[in-house]
Amino acid sequence: MASPKTIALDAMGGDHGPEVVVPGAAMSLERQPALSFILFGNQSRIEAALGRHPALAAKSRVVHTDLIVAMDEKPSQALRRGKGSSMWLPLEAVKSGEADAAVSAGNTGALMAIAKLVLRPITGIERPAIAALWPTIRSECIMLDAGANIGATAGQLADYALMGAAMARAIFHVERPSVGLLNVGTEEMKGNEDVKAAHALLKSIDALPLEYKGFVEGDQIGQGAVDVVVVEGFAGNIALKTAEGTARQIGAYLKAAMTSSLASKIGALVARGGFRVLKEKMDPRRVNGGTFLGLNGIAVKSHGSADAFGFASAVDLAYEMADSGLIARLTADIDGFHHRLSTPGAGSSAPQSSAGSALGKV
Amino acid sequence: MASPKTIALDAMGGDHGPEVVVPGAAMSLERQPALSFILFGNQSRIEAALGRHPALAAKSRVVHTDLIVAMDEKPSQALRRGKGSSMWLPLEAVKSGEADAAVSAGNTGALMAIAKLVLRPITGIERPAIAALWPTIRSECIMLDAGANIGATAGQLADYALMGAAMARAIFHVERPSVGLLNVGTEEMKGNEDVKAAHALLKSIDALPLEYKGFVEGDQIGQGAVDVVVVEGFAGNIALKTAEGTARQIGAYLKAAMTSSLASKIGALVARGGFRVLKEKMDPRRVNGGTFLGLNGIAVKSHGSADAFGFASAVDLAYEMADSGLIARLTADIDGFHHRLSTPGAGSSAPQSSAGSALGKV
Repeated sequence: MASPKTIALDAMGGDHGPEVVVPGAAMSLERQPALSFILFGNQSRIEAALGRHPALAAKSRVVHTDLIVAMDEKPSQALRRGKGSSMWLPLEAVKSGEADAAVSAGNTGALMAIAKLVLRPITGIERPAIAALWPTIRSECIMLDAGANIGATAGQLADYALMGAAMARAIFHVERPSVGLLNVGTEEMKGNEDVKAAHALLKSIDALPLEYKGFVEGDQIGQGAVDVVVVEGFAGNIALKTAEGTARQIGAYLKAAMTSSLASKIGALVARGGFRVLKEKMDPRRVNGGTFLGLNGIAVKSHGSADAFGFASAVDLAYEMADSGLIARLTADIDGFHHRLSTPGAGSSAPQSSAGSALGKV
Repeated sequence: MASPKTIALDAMGGDHGPEVVVPGAAMSLERQPALSFILFGNQSRIEAALGRHPALAAKSRVVHTDLIVAMDEKPSQALRRGKGSSMWLPLEAVKSGEADAAVSAGNTGALMAIAKLVLRPITGIERPAIAALWPTIRSECIMLDAGANIGATAGQLADYALMGAAMARAIFHVERPSVGLLNVGTEEMKGNEDVKAAHALLKSIDALPLEYKGFVEGDQIGQGAVDVVVVEGFAGNIALKTAEGTARQIGAYLKAAMTSSLASKIGALVARGGFRVLKEKMDPRRVNGGTFLGLNGIAVKSHGSADAFGFASAVDLAYEMADSGLIARLTADIDGFHHRLSTPGAGSSAPQSSAGSALGKV
């Protein structure tokens, strides 16, 4: 748990650049003293910020670049013009092995495109996905795809299940994470063809490195029904943003209710400790960080408007995934799964051939 | 606003039957004295319940039937065996003109199937949708499709926009309701092909009976960004249930926070008026009632577990829609829209032919 890890940071990404990235990294370093950093971007701005964080400065190396990818740049533009930028170089550092993970608060589409080009998808993965952490009543779950792709075939959904499970194993420390397919009902006949076929596929394969729980509905995500929620990116993105919007909406209701009378105001003041508990629980900064899953390397996207506290959560996440050996395990899982799929009868619930049992422990 | 209207009720639908339907109808009658009812189901149970509500009994007629559609019956079964049931007869009463709207708390899939068969889709509508009321910070919006169909073509999404707008006009009393297409981003290049094509279609037609606002994202629904949110039924159902689940989740957080210390408990007691305001605001019973839109008649689905208060909301909704002449207006809107689509150049933003201007006021 305390192996030294190096995180490559896009110091210029997000709405604030080094003024948030540097104090964020400093917070994360306090929690994980085994960390060191490479910061890419404007050297003088980064060093000015590091001046206020001597402990971090001692564990950091700065690589200057003037090139940045703008927040509104299209992925295709970023691919053409982004080489050598503060967003591109951290991913190259991961690829070369200099760094164990990259974190950027920059433009999501550009980061995804560059990460795919530089790190390349894991063999067998057609479509990397974005995994989001989702707070639940029990603790947290992982939801993917949060919007990297629109639509997904049954095979891609099954890959998402394995990718999400590998991430859950890395950060929740459960050996066989529970996985559900998000659907409009829990009966077998419900849903679109891809979802039904993915369900049949996940049910048919034995010895998956996950516990497949079948369909889950939207209201079960926040109940913590499963560790991993799998859905194609259109509905996944809408679900994630709808949950965020609903939380904000209820926050507004609560504020209005607590200022609706003098008694409410006094009560809210007396109960301020309780409201602080609630605020912490609902703080979106605690679960900041979308992860690109399915690449040969770890790339975490912090929210563009994150403050230092939020950015630190994204760095923590990158560290945990690097520290757990996520990529090696994920690559092996995907390989084993695709091997089972391509070997007739292997590992399926149907009576097994000897080839099937030989594959039982891939 | 006070024209006499007759509502046909499936008295046996839902988890409770007449013991909820009858007091629910009684509550609605208090608010809308111009209402009368036909109740279908077990005569002795209905009359026993009516005995406690003499004002309602005076405005009600009971039609006995022993046949009911079970909550777990498949739509295909319900179609085969449901004729003459307490779910089927109210829809026939709407079709014959005896009643102005039907309300059932029974099985959604069965009700949708029977309603489609009995009431038939409006000419030009390929797929009726389920519209749900969604509470927002401003007031309420309508979201459709909440799950009647999986997937939707561009033309079907445009029809949903018109259907939702007609309902918004009926119950929110705005002449040109604002409509947004739910998407994963607000840039033109985002989303799947159907959504992009629907966007182009809605932008291209002039003189729509709605104000098309372009794409909206999941977090804008609860902010009340538009009166009508249009999305295909898979993502729509997931969004709706995710919002419900998030609201419940935050309710649980709030309860835990307010009992986390003695001070919090005391504060919560002092502020109980405020919490009552919040509870009312978040009460899911206030917006109970999914509406089947696109049929030649009004059919409202109450939640199966609704209590009398919740069932009364569904009856109120049925009344408002009947009272506003929703179906006639919706039929005219759809007809005009399809006419514009099928007349080259008519009503589009392109330079108009004389045929186009002749159609300006269809």
